[in-house]
Amino acid sequence: MTLPDDVLEHLLDTWPVARLATIRADSRPHLVPVVFARDGGVLWSPIDGKPKADREPVRVRNVRRDGRAGLLLDDYAGDWRMLWWIRVDATATIVRGEAMNGAAAVAAANALKRKYPQYGTVPLFHGRPTLIRLEPRTVRSWCAGPAAIVAIDQG
Amino acid sequence: MTLPDDVLEHLLDTWPVARLATIRADSRPHLVPVVFARDGGVLWSPIDGKPKADREPVRVRNVRRDGRAGLLLDDYAGDWRMLWWIRVDATATIVRGEAMNGAAAVAAANALKRKYPQYGTVPLFHGRPTLIRLEPRTVRSWCAGPAAIVAIDQG
Repeated sequence: MTLPDDVLEHLLDTWPVARLATIRADSRPHLVPVVFARDGGVLWSPIDGKPKADREPVRVRNVRRDGRAGLLLDDYAGDWRMLWWIRVDATATIVRGEAMNGAAAVAAANALKRKYPQYGTVPLFHGRPTLIRLEPRTVRSWCAGPAAIVAIDQG
Repeated sequence: MTLPDDVLEHLLDTWPVARLATIRADSRPHLVPVVFARDGGVLWSPIDGKPKADREPVRVRNVRRDGRAGLLLDDYAGDWRMLWWIRVDATATIVRGEAMNGAAAVAAANALKRKYPQYGTVPLFHGRPTLIRLEPRTVRSWCAGPAAIVAIDQG
């Protein structure tokens, strides 16, 4: 069964982590966990100050070459009646440079800071401010049954 | 920093969930959470009895067309010093029919039943027994710092 619309929207607004898939130059899929915030119907993920190499992250290079991306939100539980996932097929673009001064990017940065108190200590950006903008094209959901929805509501 | 080898091997043997990325017919990435067990240096993921549609799952159709796959193991934590991930680039194949009688597939099914007591009640297979065989090509890891490794060791 699918998640009810209100539950799905709530999770897209509040769930703290997603796994991002992009396409490498050799067409293999590339996966990385990401933080994100939803603002203006779009999901935004920063290249933030968590420890990383100084070169441009693979996810950014991939998106610059090919905007086809997928995001998965889910929560594993040993009780499999509680399982659910949300899959977002998205068109990704890189926002940086002058575009970071635009209203959408400023609002996205604020949404990220509101969602993650961790940005009180971890820098929101690593080097040159960069956001991955993920515009949803298709959103699909699944859950194992009614118990999963009850658990989300109580979580 | 990367995970120490012994920690990485332990997680590949015991971590209960991974996110699988495969490639759709139109080249977009497809994501789904999966259970898996490692046996004989290979990761095996069943098309099991958790609720699903009766048609062939998208992940199986994708792998039959294109074996390029990625698996991500990670654990989100609000304390970002605890973050880690393991990314496995793999060559995927579908095992079913007569191949399910082979020693490797039988051992894989047993490894899945050992790892997941849930298979005491949930059927290991949904309809025609099918395993996704994921042979690792490249394994990369990352962790935020020493605290993440201590947390894994204590978990």
